[in-house]
Amino acid sequence: MAEFQLIERYFSGLSGTRQDVALGVGDDCALLEAPPGMRLAMTMDTLIAGRHFLPDVAPRALGHKVLAVNLSDLAAMGARPAWALLSISLPAIDHEWLSAFSAGFSALAAEHDVALVGGDTCQGHMSITLQLTGFVEPGRALRRSTARPGDKIYVTGTLGDAALALKRLLADEDPGDLRQRLEQPCPRIAEGRALSGAGATSCIDLSDGLVADLGHICQQSGCAARILLERIPMSAQVREYVSVTGDFALAVAGGDDYELCFTLPAGEAPPDGVEAACIGEMLPGQGVELLDARSRALPLPRGWEHFA
Amino acid sequence: MAEFQLIERYFSGLSGTRQDVALGVGDDCALLEAPPGMRLAMTMDTLIAGRHFLPDVAPRALGHKVLAVNLSDLAAMGARPAWALLSISLPAIDHEWLSAFSAGFSALAAEHDVALVGGDTCQGHMSITLQLTGFVEPGRALRRSTARPGDKIYVTGTLGDAALALKRLLADEDPGDLRQRLEQPCPRIAEGRALSGAGATSCIDLSDGLVADLGHICQQSGCAARILLERIPMSAQVREYVSVTGDFALAVAGGDDYELCFTLPAGEAPPDGVEAACIGEMLPGQGVELLDARSRALPLPRGWEHFA
Repeated sequence: MAEFQLIERYFSGLSGTRQDVALGVGDDCALLEAPPGMRLAMTMDTLIAGRHFLPDVAPRALGHKVLAVNLSDLAAMGARPAWALLSISLPAIDHEWLSAFSAGFSALAAEHDVALVGGDTCQGHMSITLQLTGFVEPGRALRRSTARPGDKIYVTGTLGDAALALKRLLADEDPGDLRQRLEQPCPRIAEGRALSGAGATSCIDLSDGLVADLGHICQQSGCAARILLERIPMSAQVREYVSVTGDFALAVAGGDDYELCFTLPAGEAPPDGVEAACIGEMLPGQGVELLDARSRALPLPRGWEHFA
Repeated sequence: MAEFQLIERYFSGLSGTRQDVALGVGDDCALLEAPPGMRLAMTMDTLIAGRHFLPDVAPRALGHKVLAVNLSDLAAMGARPAWALLSISLPAIDHEWLSAFSAGFSALAAEHDVALVGGDTCQGHMSITLQLTGFVEPGRALRRSTARPGDKIYVTGTLGDAALALKRLLADEDPGDLRQRLEQPCPRIAEGRALSGAGATSCIDLSDGLVADLGHICQQSGCAARILLERIPMSAQVREYVSVTGDFALAVAGGDDYELCFTLPAGEAPPDGVEAACIGEMLPGQGVELLDARSRALPLPRGWEHFA
């Protein structure tokens, strides 16, 4: 089957029903109508087999995840998702695999009204790149560079679930409920939208681990952050793992959580619909400091870094 | 060096000077201002080492080529380029390689006023994905689906140069001047813009070879195409090769030319600034027919197809 037919077959079913897609998959470019008065938010992420996902992951979960990690970047800006372009590189055509991948992608795309408008398929090592565009009102985009000393630091959800699931899978243990957290993360689009309208002073999504990602806010905002280990929200499984092993790195530096970390001015509460734990505060200075229950500084585990 | 610093170092120098980039590389998303009244044209292509380029290609040439092949898709729609996102996967950090790649990308980006606004770097087999966005006036976008029987078929430039260069490189021969045509194609942006204002009835860029790409126009327009081998524009080197070997497949099905193939109503000439040869005409029916000098049908060589 020719590349062209392959693209048509699997991608055209993912084109959605958006009115702003003047021309979708099938020509040299897609043609799109940007909404007047909105800024475009654009992101692109690549997932590589063996590096970002286990090569034997269920393709349906992978179809979900590649969209979810990019949706998470839009969430971190407070943007509303719109259009995607997808490039898939596979060792060989596998219709069963592609159907399942499409189904996983499609279900999450429908949930967030994302239209797949273009893409590319190649033969090669398994690797997937997704480019996603969304919309955000000028002045409402959440940035990494605008936190201020005195702001309180929050995170949504629980941290470390994905890292614990991965740890168990790599040890040939059943991760149970946590598999879902690793393989099919839930991007915090609604929370990002609520925060962008509610005066959050900065935001980032947690892909590389809390310490590394909060470190980006610190670096770009010219501030320090102090966070308290006992405030880090953890699921029962992660809490038990940490209390048994003492290995808190999983919760503060495990990647792939796709929760939001954001800052609010002191005295302001997260807006309705955003469940988040206050884990510390921004300070003058630089870098991230992690304190234990007796206010002693803990050694910082490193986050996930490509090429590291 | 962390991924983050790597991105900053090589990508931030490619951000250009566009006023419509509100926020470039360095946050979760780029923030961009779409021009009112224009449609966005979006494309994305992946190049994989060993499949789309020779693994030992000069990185400067590769930086040029990955942008050029995407610019060529914009050219085929009649769009003006604007913003790029780039994902690079490399086996290891190689500063010399990245510097040269950036320099090649940067030179062509400056020529077409393209800003690199985001991207991703990963460790993996060498592979590069570029997503490119441009602008085109509504109603002026060139499509594949709008050719009509009776229209004349044109191509810009000369065909087969890239395929002949690749053939020579693979045989350990020096491709001479033709190396440039393979490794640093010149996207026909100016020609695409001129054609979109001049009533071209369809257009496609030649990436997979004339027969395959013109076949897409036929299929999507519901027409047939008849082209004459003696009218196919060839460089002196390709003409000599074809006359010595009889192997005309190179000129009519060799990929990587990145010339434009377009149709005009009979009696209309290409607009000023578009040098193009008339190679045949659209007819009722379906499929591409190739005739020799005595009007006999020639067997159709297949074009380049991924997964083929």
